[in-house]
Amino acid sequence: MALRSKNLLGLKDLTADEIEYILNTAKTMKLILNSKNKKAPHLQGKSIVTLFYENSTRTRLSFELAAKYLSSSAANISAVGSSVAKGESLIDTAKTINMMGADVIILRHSMAGAPHLLAKNVDASVINAGDGMNEHPTQALLDIFTILDKKKTLKGLKVAIIGDIYHSRVARSNIWGMSKLGANVCVAGPSTLMPPEIEKTGVKVFTTVQEALIDADVVIALRIQKERQKSGLLPGIREYSRFFGLDEKRLKLAKKDAIILHPGPVNRGVELTTSVVDCDRSFINEQVTNGVAVRMALLYLLTRRDVN
Amino acid sequence: MALRSKNLLGLKDLTADEIEYILNTAKTMKLILNSKNKKAPHLQGKSIVTLFYENSTRTRLSFELAAKYLSSSAANISAVGSSVAKGESLIDTAKTINMMGADVIILRHSMAGAPHLLAKNVDASVINAGDGMNEHPTQALLDIFTILDKKKTLKGLKVAIIGDIYHSRVARSNIWGMSKLGANVCVAGPSTLMPPEIEKTGVKVFTTVQEALIDADVVIALRIQKERQKSGLLPGIREYSRFFGLDEKRLKLAKKDAIILHPGPVNRGVELTTSVVDCDRSFINEQVTNGVAVRMALLYLLTRRDVN
Amino acid sequence: MALRSKNLLGLKDLTADEIEYILNTAKTMKLILNSKNKKAPHLQGKSIVTLFYENSTRTRLSFELAAKYLSSSAANISAVGSSVAKGESLIDTAKTINMMGADVIILRHSMAGAPHLLAKNVDASVINAGDGMNEHPTQALLDIFTILDKKKTLKGLKVAIIGDIYHSRVARSNIWGMSKLGANVCVAGPSTLMPPEIEKTGVKVFTTVQEALIDADVVIALRIQKERQKSGLLPGIREYSRFFGLDEKRLKLAKKDAIILHPGPVNRGVELTTSVVDCDRSFINEQVTNGVAVRMALLYLLTRRDVN
Repeated sequence: MALRSKNLLGLKDLTADEIEYILNTAKTMKLILNSKNKKAPHLQGKSIVTLFYENSTRTRLSFELAAKYLSSSAANISAVGSSVAKGESLIDTAKTINMMGADVIILRHSMAGAPHLLAKNVDASVINAGDGMNEHPTQALLDIFTILDKKKTLKGLKVAIIGDIYHSRVARSNIWGMSKLGANVCVAGPSTLMPPEIEKTGVKVFTTVQEALIDADVVIALRIQKERQKSGLLPGIREYSRFFGLDEKRLKLAKKDAIILHPGPVNRGVELTTSVVDCDRSFINEQVTNGVAVRMALLYLLTRRDVN
Repeated sequence: MALRSKNLLGLKDLTADEIEYILNTAKTMKLILNSKNKKAPHLQGKSIVTLFYENSTRTRLSFELAAKYLSSSAANISAVGSSVAKGESLIDTAKTINMMGADVIILRHSMAGAPHLLAKNVDASVINAGDGMNEHPTQALLDIFTILDKKKTLKGLKVAIIGDIYHSRVARSNIWGMSKLGANVCVAGPSTLMPPEIEKTGVKVFTTVQEALIDADVVIALRIQKERQKSGLLPGIREYSRFFGLDEKRLKLAKKDAIILHPGPVNRGVELTTSVVDCDRSFINEQVTNGVAVRMALLYLLTRRDVN
Repeated sequence: MALRSKNLLGLKDLTADEIEYILNTAKTMKLILNSKNKKAPHLQGKSIVTLFYENSTRTRLSFELAAKYLSSSAANISAVGSSVAKGESLIDTAKTINMMGADVIILRHSMAGAPHLLAKNVDASVINAGDGMNEHPTQALLDIFTILDKKKTLKGLKVAIIGDIYHSRVARSNIWGMSKLGANVCVAGPSTLMPPEIEKTGVKVFTTVQEALIDADVVIALRIQKERQKSGLLPGIREYSRFFGLDEKRLKLAKKDAIILHPGPVNRGVELTTSVVDCDRSFINEQVTNGVAVRMALLYLLTRRDVN
């Protein structure tokens, strides 16, 4: 089997089979990651460039280490201080990187669709590391990987996603991916932060967190961006925490063996209480490791294409 | 054959033979760069540090990837946030990098002559990645490499360099290098942006772009720095484009098989129309690849010296 | 023999035997560093991340090159533009890096004790690259390495540390380390910059530089932070230089074969005259090389632990 596209732009475009293929490959990558010797030859002779127009230490570092663990030549470009400041267009920047021999360009951009635009203009593979309010597919893949690791299958699971659904590319990618794998996804959050017509994607929408939590198998709390308060869409932090924050009491509504995920970094005491973050049903730290494994798998599968 | 100096400070200092030697080596490097496996052992055990006092994503990335494709230990220092902020002098900074084992220091600095100063004070090889309004020798080498690739020789070719000659270290390096290889170089640009006494270097100076283009074999459009407008030297962008911008019609003055180069990034619609940028006589993208090959060749030739 | 801790937090915590063990290992590392091939396999398959909340090109580069010379996967995080800006706590950031497979986290932080906090919360080894006004142990180790290289032993040597003792983590680490190895450490500096009760650590305190210099075997001049003047603690730069700056005449008070050290970068004409910086008893440049060797030794010894 092979992926149909040279790029990973979003989970919207992948089949269930492709998602499972990536995640199976990630399992073997996790073995490398957990071994004494985190250096494998899969990307020897390949060149990986991260191109981030938004700051993100976590995601950038995760990709960078994934690339280095697989022996590639890896380099980072941050839009801060880049020739972008000289007015160069995204496409011209990407073409330049492409012409320098990059096999994969990993793009984070504030504009939805930026990676799609880029993918059409370069030979290199393009991985979407977050595009505006559209998708963040590698985050969703690591979420799904973590769930599969604990629950074996997503079929029939109730997955509750809690928080600012409107602005969340993580939520969008998870809805696409998890629905394809047979999960029943529901969302809850302040009504001002709920995308219009979201029901059309097939997810259930609840206005109280309690309804979403009842009998849930998986609970994903999204990160609250405090900056959103300025826009008036986000209620006060305290108020958010009171109505949508998760504490141990509230989580009793979920199934006994429900697991708790969060893309990180957590605002402790806002989305989750500290005791929930650190409880034995929380796999937030494991998500981080799984993120590196998933990215190693993607880099490998996308660069391997030209060997076939 | 070997280069006479441990440094590459400018094309002013190289002989025609040395330039051809570097470019011949770059040919073999381009084979590596275009192969499936961009990892060669030439710089194994060597250490390369870029030290940039001016922002430049393109040039820095080109050197960084060149260094990594040849298996060296490569690290970057950006003057933003460096100990330069602590008032350390350029020489002390360079000596420190030298004492940490750097074999090559790649310097970009706003002061003309900075790399020469540095070269006298460290054992490491110094490569000039652009010094003030003086030289940018690796850019000129990649320009010459691209021309030789298309035209086989520079002897007797008419090369027209168009734009802000006054501020252009690219123009200066190209004038030195191309003249040594036998080209007839001419320049055209706004009279406010023409260096005084430039004729003494042997180039022809035209005040209209049309005269420069007539029967040209190679046309190099320079990048306009919009910031120059503040100084009053640069006419309005629209006016510049009207008098010195290159479109398909104007280019008909040049030879039929004339090629078009630009150091990038292009201000589309200013120096060149989009249709010129993307036409089949434009080799702007290939220049980028050739830049990596030329830098690989230089890193190899300069660090190989101590083996002899 | 092996180090007792997975971390290097300060010289306060090391025994004299441990210090000598590290420095003996650094001797072999210096051989690698001075060879034609600065690439050794000691950290193959290991992952090293620098996490700097204060700018420092020198120390960061020294660690980065040490890590690369030993074949590890190395990545840098600068707090500028990191997710710290998103309000993530130091511990959560470190846990994330840890979960991405880092074997060693190298931390510089303005808060004394930050590395100790971190060390308790991650499996990875933590190296203190400077914490507030507490310690900077790798700087002290390289100072001691340099002294041992010239003087064979520290036993009975008079070591004079001159400058802003109050704010100096370098001074604190050196006092701990050198006292353990049997040196007689004394300090001199403006009385406003002398820590209260410093005599309790066993060092002699002088109010004039002359008394400290008499018969000294080693003179360590500390860097003056010009920013301190704002606080009113630091006298004018000229005044500082007049009373505590070292010139050749003043240094005649020290032993004939006394050596001069400085952590760098030197404010020439303030702490030391240019002729002192460049004289043959000054080993400021060698200190830089020794710093890389010491850091290579530490990275090796700390990551080797899990093999035992």
